[in-house]
This record gives sequence, structure tokens and C-alpha cells, in this order.
Amino acid sequence: MIIQLEQNITASQLEKLREKLQEIQYRSTRVSTQFGDYIIGVGKKEFDIRAIGALPGIRDIHRVSDDYKLVSKKWRVEDTVIELEEGIRIGTGHFALMAGPCSIESEEQVEKTIRHLAANGVRIMRGGVYKPRSSPYSFRGLGIDGLKLWHAKAREAGIRIITEVMMVEQIKPMIPYVDIFQVGARNAQNFNLLDALGEVGKPVLLKRGISGTIDELLQAAEYIFSNGNERIMLCERGIRTFETAYRNTMDINAIAMLKDKTHLPVIADPSHGIGLRRYVDKVALASVMAGADGIIMEVHEQPEKAFSDGQQTLGFSEAERLYRQLRLAFELREGF
Amino acid sequence: MIIQLEQNITASQLEKLREKLQEIQYRSTRVSTQFGDYIIGVGKKEFDIRAIGALPGIRDIHRVSDDYKLVSKKWRVEDTVIELEEGIRIGTGHFALMAGPCSIESEEQVEKTIRHLAANGVRIMRGGVYKPRSSPYSFRGLGIDGLKLWHAKAREAGIRIITEVMMVEQIKPMIPYVDIFQVGARNAQNFNLLDALGEVGKPVLLKRGISGTIDELLQAAEYIFSNGNERIMLCERGIRTFETAYRNTMDINAIAMLKDKTHLPVIADPSHGIGLRRYVDKVALASVMAGADGIIMEVHEQPEKAFSDGQQTLGFSEAERLYRQLRLAFELREGF
Amino acid sequence: MIIQLEQNITASQLEKLREKLQEIQYRSTRVSTQFGDYIIGVGKKEFDIRAIGALPGIRDIHRVSDDYKLVSKKWRVEDTVIELEEGIRIGTGHFALMAGPCSIESEEQVEKTIRHLAANGVRIMRGGVYKPRSSPYSFRGLGIDGLKLWHAKAREAGIRIITEVMMVEQIKPMIPYVDIFQVGARNAQNFNLLDALGEVGKPVLLKRGISGTIDELLQAAEYIFSNGNERIMLCERGIRTFETAYRNTMDINAIAMLKDKTHLPVIADPSHGIGLRRYVDKVALASVMAGADGIIMEVHEQPEKAFSDGQQTLGFSEAERLYRQLRLAFELREGF
Amino acid sequence: MIIQLEQNITASQLEKLREKLQEIQYRSTRVSTQFGDYIIGVGKKEFDIRAIGALPGIRDIHRVSDDYKLVSKKWRVEDTVIELEEGIRIGTGHFALMAGPCSIESEEQVEKTIRHLAANGVRIMRGGVYKPRSSPYSFRGLGIDGLKLWHAKAREAGIRIITEVMMVEQIKPMIPYVDIFQVGARNAQNFNLLDALGEVGKPVLLKRGISGTIDELLQAAEYIFSNGNERIMLCERGIRTFETAYRNTMDINAIAMLKDKTHLPVIADPSHGIGLRRYVDKVALASVMAGADGIIMEVHEQPEKAFSDGQQTLGFSEAERLYRQLRLAFELREGF
Repeated sequence: MIIQLEQNITASQLEKLREKLQEIQYRSTRVSTQFGDYIIGVGKKEFDIRAIGALPGIRDIHRVSDDYKLVSKKWRVEDTVIELEEGIRIGTGHFALMAGPCSIESEEQVEKTIRHLAANGVRIMRGGVYKPRSSPYSFRGLGIDGLKLWHAKAREAGIRIITEVMMVEQIKPMIPYVDIFQVGARNAQNFNLLDALGEVGKPVLLKRGISGTIDELLQAAEYIFSNGNERIMLCERGIRTFETAYRNTMDINAIAMLKDKTHLPVIADPSHGIGLRRYVDKVALASVMAGADGIIMEVHEQPEKAFSDGQQTLGFSEAERLYRQLRLAFELREGF
Repeated sequence: MIIQLEQNITASQLEKLREKLQEIQYRSTRVSTQFGDYIIGVGKKEFDIRAIGALPGIRDIHRVSDDYKLVSKKWRVEDTVIELEEGIRIGTGHFALMAGPCSIESEEQVEKTIRHLAANGVRIMRGGVYKPRSSPYSFRGLGIDGLKLWHAKAREAGIRIITEVMMVEQIKPMIPYVDIFQVGARNAQNFNLLDALGEVGKPVLLKRGISGTIDELLQAAEYIFSNGNERIMLCERGIRTFETAYRNTMDINAIAMLKDKTHLPVIADPSHGIGLRRYVDKVALASVMAGADGIIMEVHEQPEKAFSDGQQTLGFSEAERLYRQLRLAFELREGF
Repeated sequence: MIIQLEQNITASQLEKLREKLQEIQYRSTRVSTQFGDYIIGVGKKEFDIRAIGALPGIRDIHRVSDDYKLVSKKWRVEDTVIELEEGIRIGTGHFALMAGPCSIESEEQVEKTIRHLAANGVRIMRGGVYKPRSSPYSFRGLGIDGLKLWHAKAREAGIRIITEVMMVEQIKPMIPYVDIFQVGARNAQNFNLLDALGEVGKPVLLKRGISGTIDELLQAAEYIFSNGNERIMLCERGIRTFETAYRNTMDINAIAMLKDKTHLPVIADPSHGIGLRRYVDKVALASVMAGADGIIMEVHEQPEKAFSDGQQTLGFSEAERLYRQLRLAFELREGF
Repeated sequence: MIIQLEQNITASQLEKLREKLQEIQYRSTRVSTQFGDYIIGVGKKEFDIRAIGALPGIRDIHRVSDDYKLVSKKWRVEDTVIELEEGIRIGTGHFALMAGPCSIESEEQVEKTIRHLAANGVRIMRGGVYKPRSSPYSFRGLGIDGLKLWHAKAREAGIRIITEVMMVEQIKPMIPYVDIFQVGARNAQNFNLLDALGEVGKPVLLKRGISGTIDELLQAAEYIFSNGNERIMLCERGIRTFETAYRNTMDINAIAMLKDKTHLPVIADPSHGIGLRRYVDKVALASVMAGADGIIMEVHEQPEKAFSDGQQTLGFSEAERLYRQLRLAFELREGF
């Protein structure tokens, strides 16, 4: 169950509520976010929802039988829309484009990418400064210095920054330079990192694990929410299956289902989703029709010269064509 | 390699070609279809393509290094468009809708479905009379009598029939009543059935196996083509993955890739693809954006009363809305 | 439910039973095998098992709530042991070794293999004469002539034959020359083939589908049993997973579980299970410890020269060493 | 390539080596562990191995073309054997048993478990004090206090401790109380954690990711080794496949292959591997025959009352029987 508390609930009212929950043998967790105060109750017994809901200091109470609670659509009338500065909105009814290189490489690369994005009305730039790499001998990104350089250029152009964070220690130094923290697929169940991001006042984009279920993704989001941060988006980025013709198997089913199960925005990553440049456009368009609230994709002036091998990265002109198509597909879908 | 023969190639010219192939140690297979004559050569040595191509009696010669040959896009300038009677076309540039119940159940059901399809301009009706069932104790369909009844009603209304064939012995009796033979996912590598369908003058819709790779699907189609039948469409119907939130995981990546690898039409089956009625529309729309040439889907006047449990079946009004949306999505895509 | 009938049950007693089942709304199927007569009842209502069991003409009645019935362990006190001629037994308490080449290639190859098997006390020889091949341009086996040649040599040496059957039409001509019919992974849900093998008086080894579940395998076996043939063994031969380091992923969990769920013998195929010669021995030994009643494996005098590429085939001396180890492992396990 | 350095290599000799590597365009990484000094070179060009090997200050040089280097078997003559205090050895030729509860719950539970282990000659005890849980509302373990309590009891009895570490910050406080650090499946690609464990003087047991490939597991181990810690064991604990009959699919193929690819010890976790108590014994025995150097398993005095639901946990008497069987299976295997 989810109990929404009044802001001015008193200590004795709270105590009374706790007793009531103990009576019915529900374990309770207090959650305070930037937008509200909640008690999450977990238990198995039947209970009289009105008796609890009528207690003083309680705004509302909701039954949510899923393993995830606060991220469920069952208790929220309206879908979450995340607002960034300057009127950028992410969530139902809005369409978010995020694009940029796999890795931040150089000042020149950043400038060229920003020019490309600005010319195309793309207001959120992706890029890695901390790169999770299978091999310890691979390039691991430019780190905080790369981020600062990037941030300075992006701010000038009114472009927002989304980038991956890999460990708790990185969060604090990154905060001034990041608009959206990204959690990568390999950290989808790094619960300590999720906890820590719950205490941060910035939105988080949470990627589905390489073989993560829908349910696991939603519970991972619950970690962030229950630690205090309601500004979460989920990202489908392809799963691991028996099929080796593509790098990953983009699971558009997940997009359709997530939009039904949670009030959080759902973003699709076609670049990693199929992992083959040639098909990124089709997979991106399919994702929009399946219900995605936005697309995050890799672009590079010269994909074949990117630090990453660029096999899943679009060139600027391909990307331009795709932005237009995606916006049209979004408009068509919204008209349905 | 694929060698296209002139219709009037002489026996001695053919003999000469064979010798040439033996010289370079290529095993050769003669293929005659309703549309052409071919020699398929399989070997590893380098060869002079012009020397062979210049031989008399040869129209053209193509290198195709894939394991599949005749179904590859590498040698065909234009995509295959399959024509049914009355101007129905399936393939690139056309959009095919096929709808109907899981199983043919009764005359009344057939009539109602036909009325629904006719009113919506859907000209191909699906339905099972031989049903592959996991349990031997389940209903296995009305068989040939059901098919005859269905056929009579459909012909009156100008509706074409697609239905599954499960074994070689069923083909011959079914021929007069079937417009498209469907091969189900469980028979995707039933090579004897594929061989036999190669000798039939009717189009075949070949479903991907439950864990079939793209390559296996194309090689299965090669069985049909190389036995004489060029009129094949491929069908993505969801694969088996670790995710159990849906019955199958619709793999729209396969649609995007198949349209690139083969000249054959590609159809999407969202009903089995995700297997949950609530999401069939989104998955169908996504499939169109990924490049599908058509959609095959389950509809029933009363899904919850269908012989199958109907969990993946749309009601008539849901279906009507979806037909319209699919046609719009197709138009948008063609405009790109 | 499974109702075992007395041999001399009268038509009127049978009628009475049928009425009783209709009363409780159970659909019933009559099954007659080489060893018994049964009625399988499928329904959902609660019923009084004693009331039905006490009817005249009934030997016994069992509740079996699984989707599969006759192959379930829930109603059989003793595991099935399949007897071949000359005292060969397959099933709990016995250990069966089956070995031979991927494909039957020549008289010389058959003779050498038989000598090898006889010298090592291996009494069942495997080999393909009808080969399921992904590509239509690959060698599909020597067919019935190869089988006859093989059979003549094997009979002289007292060696029994197991070989794959791929289509219903092949069964009848094969019967005189086959001791165990094998159904391959690709035909694991070829229900017509399973039906037909239910009417044959020879044992059947049924392989698990490439992505077949335990439940599907048992239901496939139920097809054979319910059509009249109780002499079935199941075979784990590796499944398709995300891991591409091996050809298939041998699933020894399935062996452990199948021995618990069914009374049928369970055979392991390490050659296909992992598909890499180097590891066949370890996988075979692991399969025995997991509970396998026997091992079917590929051996060839010169694996690297086999028709198949032989990558999963042991040479004679490797095989000899493994036979000994497997027998020791079996003895150890039986002692537990 | 791996270059083993002499302990007394001089700065100028090192400089010379670096130049040589730059000449052939190899990126180099210096690695210093508790046992040796190495330079890892990564590049693509052909090089003269003897020319480099003959340089002063170099003990040996090895070509290792795998993505992982130091953990590869290609350069090490002998398998790694990890020694704990009091003569406990883990690795080829030795058999390690590790057992204990899912979670450390209470002093009484710890005492009972220790008595059980001591009585059966099991010298390493597993148990969780930091538990990775899908839901933020679940019990997350007793933490460092639980570990201290456990450590005090274990030391008295001469029992060693293996327990999971989930984040970098936990490592330092845990060091005095832990004998083997365990990295869980969800952290199998938490590269920062792996880096940090490379700097620790304690052995690490690294679990395979839920859908981690063999190659990813070995590269994860390379992270630890290349940061300075050679004392690593790998652990197969079941993978995620389409099969839902078990919680995970124990992949004994991985055990066989890992023993061939790496010199590190390989441990099997049958409890999580299949996740069903009823089959843990068979899976454990199979793992030994596949080549495992040890077994880590869950035992609890009253499995059904464990904090975890105990569905994969053996009771003491089941466990006792299994220890004996495992030791016999190990002896048999070593005799082969």
C-alpha cells in the first residue's frame, strides 16, 4: 500500500498510523521526496482501506499489490512529466530527443556535435565521460575534466547534458555539470548506486539490465524513488537473446508494457537496442509507435572514426533525416 | 552462386556449364520454379564470374556468399510482390492486412468475421482448421470440413484464405480451398513439409521458429524456393527469451533486418508476437514502422469466448480502429 | 485423471464410466497401448476419486494434475524400463551407451564402427540416414539404402540400431531395419510425426526441442504414449541460450528434473549438448551424475574427415576412455 | 602479450621496453600483484617475440590473443592454487567445500551452522551480511555488526569466512573479518568494485553475471588481476534462459570450458544454479564431474524458516549426505 501524508502531519498522528500498520502486520517505510511524503506498507493481510485513509494527517491511500509501489501507475492519476530548465519536458504528451557521441573525445568533437544538435532543435546531448568497458585495457573515458569542458560548451548553446555515472563517489563531483544522470545496463541492479541517486536533486535515466525483466527494472526504479527522487525515466536498450544477428535484441514489447505499468517516462535507445547503424532508424521509429516518450541515440560527425568503433552510430545527415521522421511518427501516434 | 538460365538453353549448353562448375569444384543444384530456371552452385574456390556468365544459354550469374541463395536480396533487383487473384498484392509498396480467428469454429463465426473484414476492406482472412497443440488432449481443429465451409463463404465475399498446414499429406486435399499456405513456428524446420510446399502452386507464409535465427528462417525459405515455388512470405511472430511478462518477445529487429537481406515480403504477427491483447495495437504499429509489408492478426466477435482462450485476440471494434491506424502508419512510412 | 481399465471391461461398464465422466464435465480420451488400456479425463471440477475407482471394470484411478498425464511419475509406481532384444535394458537401474557417427557414410565406416563398439561392449549404434539440414543444398543422408546396409552389418554383430526419422512416410519402410526411432530436436513438436510413432511397435527416443521447455517435452511424449506406444525415452541435447561459446548449452538441470517428473528413461546427448569435442567427456560425466540413464554420443574413426564436420565427434580412443569413465560414474551414482 | 618482469628491472631497462612496444604500436599497462610484475601489451601488429624476450630485465614473454590476458591459461604452466591460512587450498587437485546460510541471522544460527560444518570437515562458511535485494523494501542483511559476530564465532572454530561485498565503501571495514570476498552476479560488471578488489590482499570469488558470457566473466577477473590481486576464483551460478521450470539454468558447460581457458579455480554454486532444493544434490555432483574445484552451497538448520525463503537451501542432514557424495565424486574424477 501507498499512503500519501499531509505535509503538516504531526508526530502523534504518525505514531497512530504506525500502530495501525503494526496491528495488521505491515512493515512500513517512510519515504520523503522532493514532491511528497509517503509511507509504504508491505504485508499480506486484508485491511480496511477506508479506516486507514480516514486517519488525520493522511491525504490519500492506495492499494498497490505489485512488488514495486511508488513507480506503479495504479496510484497516480497522471503520468510523470520531468521538467528540465528552459521548458524542456520529458514524459507523456512530449517528445524528447537526446543525441550525441558514445564518448566525449575532444573540444572539437563537442563543438561540432552541439552545432549539429542546435541546428536540429535537439536540446539534450548524450556522451560518456566514464565508460564501462568489458576489458580493463580499454579507454575508460575523459572523466570529470571531459565533463567540465563539455558542460561549458553546452551551457553556452542552451543544450542539456545526460551522461553515465558508474559509482557513488562520482556523483557529487558530477552534480554541477550534469542535467540527467544515466545508469547503464551493467549497473541496473547496483543497488547502492540507485540508493545514492535517490538522494540527488537531478533526474535519472535508468537503463534496463542486459537480461533484466520488466519487473526488475521497475523495482530498480523503486530504489531511486523510495530514497527521495521522483524524477526517473526508464530506458529500453535491447536485451540479450539467442539471436546473434544483432548486438542486442531491441524489445519494443517492453516499451508498450512499461507505458501501461508505470507513470514514469519511457525512453528508447535504438543505437544499443539493435547495435547496427543500418537499422537504427527503423528501430527508433518502431519504438515511437510502441509508445516511447523519447529517443536517445548515438551520432558522430565521422562514425567510423569514433573512439568506440561507431558501428551503432549515425552520421549527422542520417540523424537529421531521422529526427524529422521521429517527430512525424510521434505526431501521428499522438493523433491516435 | 546463382546462375539464371535462358528458357531455351540446350542440353549440350547445360552440359558445358556443368563441366565448368565441376572444374572449379562447385556442387550444383538445378532449380525450376514457376518463374524461372536456375543453377545453384555451392563451393569455396575463387572463380571468374564473367567466364561463366558469357557461356551460351545463360541469362545472368550472381555471387551470393550467404548460406541462403535464391531468397537473398543480393541478386534480385526488385523485391518480390506476390499477386493473389483480384488484384491483391503482397510485398514492398503494398500493405497487406490478414485477420481472423485463431480457430475456425462454426458457420456463424465465419459469416460474422467475413462481414467484419469486408466492411473494413480486409481481403485476406486467417483461421486455423488444423491446430498444433502442445497437449494431445486439446481440440485440434475442424479439419478439411471446416475449411470447405469457410471457403464457400469466403469466395462469395471475395475474401482470400490463409491457413496453416501441418503435414505433407494435408497439402493435396487443401489445395482447392486455400489461397496461402501457412507454416507454423513449430514446423519452421520441418524440411519435408517445406520441400513439399515448394512443389505447390500457391503462396506460402513461413513463420519464424520459436527460437529460430534470421539465418535459419531464410534457409527454410530457400527449401521452398529451391523446390520450385518463388511465392514465399516470411513472418515474424515473436521469439522465446528470458522475459516472461509476455508470451513471446516480438522481435521487430528481425523485420528491419529481413527487409534488408531478402527480396521476399515480410509479415508481422503481433497477436502471437506479444500474445497479450492489450498491447497488440502498439506492437502492430511498431512492426509497420520497422518495415513490415503486412500484418496478420487475430480477431473474434467475442474474444473471451473463442475456442482458444482469446488472450491475444482483438474484438471487432478494437480491430477496426487498428486497421485505420496501421494504414496511416504505412502511408507515413512510405513517405519517408 | 488416469483411469486404468481391466482388460475385460464390458461395453456397458465402459458406457457407465463415460456417463460418470460427463456428469463431472470431464472430456475423456481412450488410450490403448501395447501394455494397457486407459481413459484420460481432462476437466476442472472436483470429483470423488473413490466413487469412480469403485466402478466395475476399473483397475485403478489416479489424479494427475499436470498437463501431461500418462508420462507423469505421479501414477506409476515403477519407472519404465525398455527392453530390446538380447537383454538390453534402458531405464532406471541400467546404463545405456549408444554411439556412432553423425551420418552413415559407407560400408567400411559401418564395419569399423561396429568393430569398435563390439570391442567396448556398446550394444546400440547411432547414425543418421535421413539428416535434417538447415540448407537445402547440403547432403541429406544415404536414406533407406544406407539403412539396409547398416542393418545387415549390425545384426551380424548383435548391435542394435537407433536412427532419426523425419516424416510419417519414412516410418513404414524403416520399421524392419530400426530398433529405436529417434525424433530430432527440430521435430520435437511435429505432432503428426509423434502421433504416427505412437502406432509403431518400436521404442522412440524423443529429443528436446532447441528451445523446448521441460513441459513441452513431456507433452510431446504424451502424444506418443496416448497414441499407443509406451516405449519412449527422453533426450536432453542442449538448448539455445545467449551463450555462443558452445554450440548449444547442455542443460543438466533438465536431466535432474525429468528423472523426478516422469517414469520414462532419460538419455543425455553430450555431443550435441555442448557441441565441442574437447568437452564432450566432462559433459557426459556430468550428465550421468545428474541422473541420466544413458548417453548417446558421436564417434568416428577419423572425426575430422566425417561427412559432418566432426567438431563434436570423438575419435575411437577418446571414446573408449570415456565409456569406462561413464560406467564408473554410473556405478558410483547407483551406490548413493 | 604478457611480459613478466624481473624483480630487479631497472628504470632504463623499463624505458627501453616501453620504446620497443611503442615501435610496434602496442599500448602497454603495468601490472604489479602480490606475486609478480607484468607489462600487458595490446595491439594488432605482428612482432618478433624473441627480440623482446631477450631484452634485459625480462623474465618471460607470452603471446595471449584472447581479450583477457593474465587470467588466461595460455601463459601459465600451472593452475593457480589459492592458499588460505591453516592449509586450506583451493584450486586444481584440491576440493573446496563452502556452505552456510543465505543470510547471517543470529548468534544461535551462526553457532549451529559452525557446529554442523566443523563436524563435517567443511572449513569455509558462506553467509550474507549485505544482501542484494530486488526490492528496496526487503531485508538487506545485518551488515558489519553481523559480520563481526560471525567472525568471532568462526575464528574460534577454525572456520574461514566468505561473504558478499556490494560496494567499494564496504571493503575497508570488512577486511579484518573476511577471508574471501564474494562478488555477486548482479555486480559481475561493476568495474569500479572489481578495480577496488584488485587492491585488496584477500582472495575474491567472482560470480558469473545472470546473463554473462564466459568471455565477460574472464574479462571481469582480468580487472581484479590487473589491479594487483592474483587470488581470484570464478563461480558458475546459473544463467537466465527461456526455461522457467528452475530459477536459473546451471551451466555446467561453463565449468568444463573455464577449466580449459583459465588457470584460476572454478567453483560451482548449485543452490542458485538451479534454485530448487530437491535437485541441488544432482546439480552439485554434475558440477564436480564437469571439473569444478569446489562447491558453494546453502545450508540451514531449518531451511523453511530461513530469512530467505530457503527454497534452494538444504537441511543439515541432506547436506551431510551430499558432502560425502561430493568427496567421492571428486576422488573418482581425480582418478580419471
